[in-house]
Amino acid sequence: MNRSQLVSKIRQKKSVLCVGLDTDIEKIPRHLITGSEDPVFEFNKAIVDATKELAVAYKINTAFYEAQGINGWKSLERTLAYIPKDIFTIADAKRGDIGNTADQYAKTFFYTFPFDAVTVAPYMGRDSVSPFLGHEDKWAIVLGLTSNAGSQDFQMQPIGDKRLYQVVLETVAGWGGADDTMFVIGATRGEQLADIRKSLPNHFFLVPGVGAQGGDVNTVCKAALNSDAGLLINVSRNIIYAGNGADFAEQAHAEARKFQMEMALFF
Amino acid sequence: MNRSQLVSKIRQKKSVLCVGLDTDIEKIPRHLITGSEDPVFEFNKAIVDATKELAVAYKINTAFYEAQGINGWKSLERTLAYIPKDIFTIADAKRGDIGNTADQYAKTFFYTFPFDAVTVAPYMGRDSVSPFLGHEDKWAIVLGLTSNAGSQDFQMQPIGDKRLYQVVLETVAGWGGADDTMFVIGATRGEQLADIRKSLPNHFFLVPGVGAQGGDVNTVCKAALNSDAGLLINVSRNIIYAGNGADFAEQAHAEARKFQMEMALFF
Repeated sequence: MNRSQLVSKIRQKKSVLCVGLDTDIEKIPRHLITGSEDPVFEFNKAIVDATKELAVAYKINTAFYEAQGINGWKSLERTLAYIPKDIFTIADAKRGDIGNTADQYAKTFFYTFPFDAVTVAPYMGRDSVSPFLGHEDKWAIVLGLTSNAGSQDFQMQPIGDKRLYQVVLETVAGWGGADDTMFVIGATRGEQLADIRKSLPNHFFLVPGVGAQGGDVNTVCKAALNSDAGLLINVSRNIIYAGNGADFAEQAHAEARKFQMEMALFF
Repeated sequence: MNRSQLVSKIRQKKSVLCVGLDTDIEKIPRHLITGSEDPVFEFNKAIVDATKELAVAYKINTAFYEAQGINGWKSLERTLAYIPKDIFTIADAKRGDIGNTADQYAKTFFYTFPFDAVTVAPYMGRDSVSPFLGHEDKWAIVLGLTSNAGSQDFQMQPIGDKRLYQVVLETVAGWGGADDTMFVIGATRGEQLADIRKSLPNHFFLVPGVGAQGGDVNTVCKAALNSDAGLLINVSRNIIYAGNGADFAEQAHAEARKFQMEMALFF
């Protein structure tokens, strides 16, 4: 999916909601476990059906699928195939390797499993990011600033008068363009997010950390929206685990609707 | 596998050789492609048979398997099961995520696919590394310094009077111990490697970059061996693609033998 298609969907749905399918087999409703051959897919299918009018993107956190081995990859493949083609799909895989190995990862998440985007770790530098750039209608979403406690350990280290994450953002932005590169910005404090938006006016940001992790939609939208939206806000647990009984999908819908209504105020 | 078992195998075999199974279906001998249901596994099986007396470790580069989709994961699972249990196994997966997601990756590569070790990217900080520590007989191999051109982009950035990779090495070494943490050190220049060994006298280093990428065994052993060996040298392409005819396994054996004989001089 290219930038104008994504922007158009955002305007049509008045939503920058990305639903995170961090589907943990330990946490899904028990009736799905006993009643299905692939309960993870059945759960995702119900969540997608319940939220597809409200979400502009789905993010599949590959770790939860990989941990289930080959069956997990089958659930992932089925889920990806089930998501409507006009919704943006992200493999949250945080791959980071170089050269011919990075080419293999790009192949994995752009073609073998045909996602629109994959998250990429920048530590190894240019040759770990550039293999994901320049694929038609495909995106690299590079880790910039994350919202976890450990982001202090390296991302906040001072380099001259900047922090490492700022050096990463500015450097990586120079390798591709705003039509093939996005950034993960786990900044739920408005001021910091607004500063990052100033230095990167055109790029899309994928912002996690809203909901269970403490951020709120209003603050993030105010600080990070640009004229093309330029923003995807990911919510995982708050939506997919809103309920865990027979009505879990209705609960997920209601929760997604709350987030989308807060977003709609900005469109 | 724990440290003393690994050290004992190194002494017994007079080898620190890790054979990298970066098995690319485009590069394996054609007769395997037409003659087998799972040519990647058949290739790996022949390479393992041909090198298992010489290698103390195998490193499976997951990207090459992931790019083949579900069939790739089947090849990976079969390969891992085929490697003799007294040889150290590394998932070169370079995973890096936090909290409950990192727990899922640890589950994936320590238990679902029972490797001895997995490579881990440090960018997100402590909560991206600590979930891999403290698992009995299991290891996190954390990216420190890599040997690619892009290592200049971030790893070599100055932080006070150090470089980022030095801050990473010292910080990460404080989170675990020399019995559950190793480091990827892509330093093929002897002086730099010797400096890193001085600052981390006890940890195992996994050194790539020997062979096709220009480093040599003698320089690396001189600079990095400690009293417990403390070293695994990975060679991938030079060994696994030494030949590509009917005798590819014999060629791989001969090449592995050359590397091992250089290593044996140090034991």
